[in-house]
Amino acid sequence: MDFDIKTNEKGNLSIGGADAIELTEKYNTPLYVIDETKIRDNYRRVYESFSSHYNDFKIFYACKANTNLAVMRILEQEGSGIDAVSPGEIYTALLAGFEAERIIYTGNNVTNEELKFAVDSGVIINLDSISALKRLSKLTDPKKVKISFRINPKVGAGHHEHCITGGDLSKFGVMEEEAADVYSMAKDLGFTPVGIHTHIGSGILDPEPFMLAVETLMDVTGRVHEEAGVKFEFIDFGGGLGIPYETEESKLDIEKFSKEITGLFKDKLNEYNLGKPTMCIEPGRYIVGDASVLLTKVNTIKQSYRKFAGVDAGFNTLLRPSMYGSYHHIVVANKPEAENTQKIDIAGNVCESGDLFARDRPMPEINEGDTLAILNAGAYAFSMSSQYNSRPKTMEILIKDGESEIIREREIFADVLAKQNVPIRLLK
Amino acid sequence: MDFDIKTNEKGNLSIGGADAIELTEKYNTPLYVIDETKIRDNYRRVYESFSSHYNDFKIFYACKANTNLAVMRILEQEGSGIDAVSPGEIYTALLAGFEAERIIYTGNNVTNEELKFAVDSGVIINLDSISALKRLSKLTDPKKVKISFRINPKVGAGHHEHCITGGDLSKFGVMEEEAADVYSMAKDLGFTPVGIHTHIGSGILDPEPFMLAVETLMDVTGRVHEEAGVKFEFIDFGGGLGIPYETEESKLDIEKFSKEITGLFKDKLNEYNLGKPTMCIEPGRYIVGDASVLLTKVNTIKQSYRKFAGVDAGFNTLLRPSMYGSYHHIVVANKPEAENTQKIDIAGNVCESGDLFARDRPMPEINEGDTLAILNAGAYAFSMSSQYNSRPKTMEILIKDGESEIIREREIFADVLAKQNVPIRLLK
Repeated sequence: MDFDIKTNEKGNLSIGGADAIELTEKYNTPLYVIDETKIRDNYRRVYESFSSHYNDFKIFYACKANTNLAVMRILEQEGSGIDAVSPGEIYTALLAGFEAERIIYTGNNVTNEELKFAVDSGVIINLDSISALKRLSKLTDPKKVKISFRINPKVGAGHHEHCITGGDLSKFGVMEEEAADVYSMAKDLGFTPVGIHTHIGSGILDPEPFMLAVETLMDVTGRVHEEAGVKFEFIDFGGGLGIPYETEESKLDIEKFSKEITGLFKDKLNEYNLGKPTMCIEPGRYIVGDASVLLTKVNTIKQSYRKFAGVDAGFNTLLRPSMYGSYHHIVVANKPEAENTQKIDIAGNVCESGDLFARDRPMPEINEGDTLAILNAGAYAFSMSSQYNSRPKTMEILIKDGESEIIREREIFADVLAKQNVPIRLLK
Repeated sequence: MDFDIKTNEKGNLSIGGADAIELTEKYNTPLYVIDETKIRDNYRRVYESFSSHYNDFKIFYACKANTNLAVMRILEQEGSGIDAVSPGEIYTALLAGFEAERIIYTGNNVTNEELKFAVDSGVIINLDSISALKRLSKLTDPKKVKISFRINPKVGAGHHEHCITGGDLSKFGVMEEEAADVYSMAKDLGFTPVGIHTHIGSGILDPEPFMLAVETLMDVTGRVHEEAGVKFEFIDFGGGLGIPYETEESKLDIEKFSKEITGLFKDKLNEYNLGKPTMCIEPGRYIVGDASVLLTKVNTIKQSYRKFAGVDAGFNTLLRPSMYGSYHHIVVANKPEAENTQKIDIAGNVCESGDLFARDRPMPEINEGDTLAILNAGAYAFSMSSQYNSRPKTMEILIKDGESEIIREREIFADVLAKQNVPIRLLK
C-alpha cells in the first residue's frame, strides 16, 4: 500500500499532525481536511525533479482539481502557474495573486464572450479549435495576445474512459495532421503563436503513455516549426500524473519519470532544432489528490440482504465513486490500524442506489459513531460537489503544523435557496 | 416520438407559448425554461386518474427531482404533498407553504440531528432502518410522532442500475421478511406506526414492475397487519413513474396504469382486511421531467477525427448524460422541424472527455450561433448541477401563458467563491 496512513499516540488517524477525531468534534462532519505540507511537498517533488534535468521548466497547476483559494495561495507562494479552463478559474487565479502571464487558459467550446474575457485578462490563450482561432482574430488585435494550440495527438491514456482526453474520440484540440496548417493560418491572421500544448489523459502512473505523448507532440512541434516557421517559447505536455488510489498501485517514480521525459524532450529539441523553449506540465491530481481526506461519521449499521455502514456524506459531497466507479481507500479514523474482519458496503446518504463509497470492501469492525476517513479526496472532490438532495455544501479546513483553520465555511439552507425568486402570483 | 415539440409562426421552438430564441436573447444561455402549465397538467393527470379509481388518494411530489421554490409553490397550489429526503428538503417544503402533515420524510442513513430536526418539524417520519427506529425512540416521546417504515421488497426496476432502489443490492429500507418484527419492535418502543412505504425504482413506463411491487408491498402489509396488529392509515408505493426520453419510448398510459394498480390495491385491501387507508404515490420525474427544456448555444463546430457541435453548457449544468449515459432528445431551437442530415457529437464545455450530451446523434445541419434545446430537462437536472470548473450556476425561468419570469438568477463568480476564508499568513 503506497500511501501514508499515520496513527497518533491516541490511536487515531493523524492528518498533518492533527487528530482526525478531535477535528470532527470541533468542526462536525462531513469534513474535508487538507494538509498544507503535502501540497507543498508534492509541488516541490515535481518541480525539483524535472528542473534538475531541464532548467527552463514550469508547472501550471490544473486548478479544476481543487480551486479553494487557500490551496491556490499555497501554490502561488510555491511559484506555480495556473492551468485555467474557464473564465471563473482565470478570475479565481487572478484574485489569488497569480499574474496573468502565469496563467494558461485552455477552454473547450468557448464563447466569444469567454474569449474576450481571456483577452482582457491578459492570460496566455491556448486555443482548442480553428473556430476559436477565427473568432479570436475578430475580437482583438492579434499582436496583443499570446496564443498556443492544443494538439490532439490521437494517443489517449487514463484511468477511466471519461478521462481519456487524447485520441480519435476526443472533443479536445486540433488534429495532429492539421497542426502545421492551423499555425500557418494563425500567422496569416496576424498572430505570433508562441506555444504548443497537449493533454492525453489522467491518472497515469508509469512513463509509457506519457512518453508516447511527448514523442508525438515533439514530432508535431518539429513539423510546425519547419512547415509554418513557428519559434516556440513553450511546449506544454499537459497533466495526467496520477496518484495511487488502489492499494496495489504504486506511486509514480517521479525521478525516473522526469528523467525519461526530459531526456526524450531534449533529444527531440535537438532533432528538430527547436532551441531551448520552456518545458511545461500541468499536474492537478498529483499536487492535491493525496493532500485531503474526507471525514464522515457512521450513523447506521444495517444488516439487510447485505451489510451496510451508512455515513453522513453522499455523492453530493464526493462524486467520484458514484460517477466513475472510482476506488477511494477508506480507514476507520478512530482505529486506522485495525485489521479487516469483514466485507461491507459503505453507503452515503443520498437518495439514490448508486450512492455508495464502496461495495464489498474489506474493513475492520465498524460501529455507529465511528468516523471513516475517505483518503485521496483532494482532487475532483469538493470541486465537483453539489447541493443535490438540498444538502448544504460541506466544510473545508486546512492543517499546518498540526493546527487547523477553516478555509471554507459549511453552507446553511439559505445557501441552497439562494438566487431564487418566486413570482408573486404563486405566493397567493 | 411521444413528446411534444411545438414550432411557432417564426419557425422557432415554442415553450409554453414563449419563443425559445427570444428567451435566449433576453436571458442569455445556458437557460432552464420551465413550463408551468405542463407541471399542472402532469399533476392533474395522475391525480385525476388514480382518484377516479380510489378516492382516498394522495400524491407526495418527490421534490429532489426539482426543488425550485416556484415549482414547489405550483405543486402546493395543486394540493400535492411532498416526499422529502433531507432536512433541507423539509425546510424548503415548509418554506414553500406545505403543512408538516403533507410532508413525508424518507431519509437514508440519517443522523440523530436529522431525526431531531424531523421531529421538531412535525412531518411524518418514514424510517429506513432498525437503527433509525431505535435512535428515534431515544430522541422523542414516541406518542408525539407519526412513523412508517420503508420496506425493501427484493424487487427492483428502473432505467439504470443506479436507480434500482429495491432489491437485494439496495441500501434502502428494511427487508420484507423482517417487516412484521420491525413494526412489533416499534410498538414495543411506544410508537403507533401508521403507514408503510416502498420505492422500487425509477423510469418505469409500463405497469408490470410496479404491479409486482404493489403486490409484494400489499402482502407485506397484510402480514404486518395480522402479525403485529398495525392499523394502517396510509400505504405509500413511492415513485418510479417514468417519462419517455428516447424517441422510440411511449408515454406511460396513466389511465391503464392507475386502473390496474388501484384494482390490485383494492383486491389486496379486501384480502387482508386492511380497511380503507390512504393510497399514496411519490412521483417526481413524471411531474416535472418534461416540463423543462435546457437551452444552450452552439459556439463551435469542429471537424476533428469526428464532428462535434460544441455548446455553452456542460455536465456541471446537466449531469445525467455524463453520469448515467442518459439519452436526452435534442432539437435545434431555431429550426425544430429540420430533417436530420448527419450524425454528430454534441459536446459540452467542461474539461472532461465524458462531457458529451450526445454521441453520434442524428441531427439536422448545425451552425455556430444555433441554439439547441435539450428536452426533458426538468427532473434531476438543475437539482444535480454543480459549480465544477468554477462555473457559476445557470438561470431558471418560468413560463406561464407565453410570459417569462426569472425564478432563479444566474450566479456570478462571487457565488462560486462564497464561504471561503484564506488564512492571513497565506496572503503575505
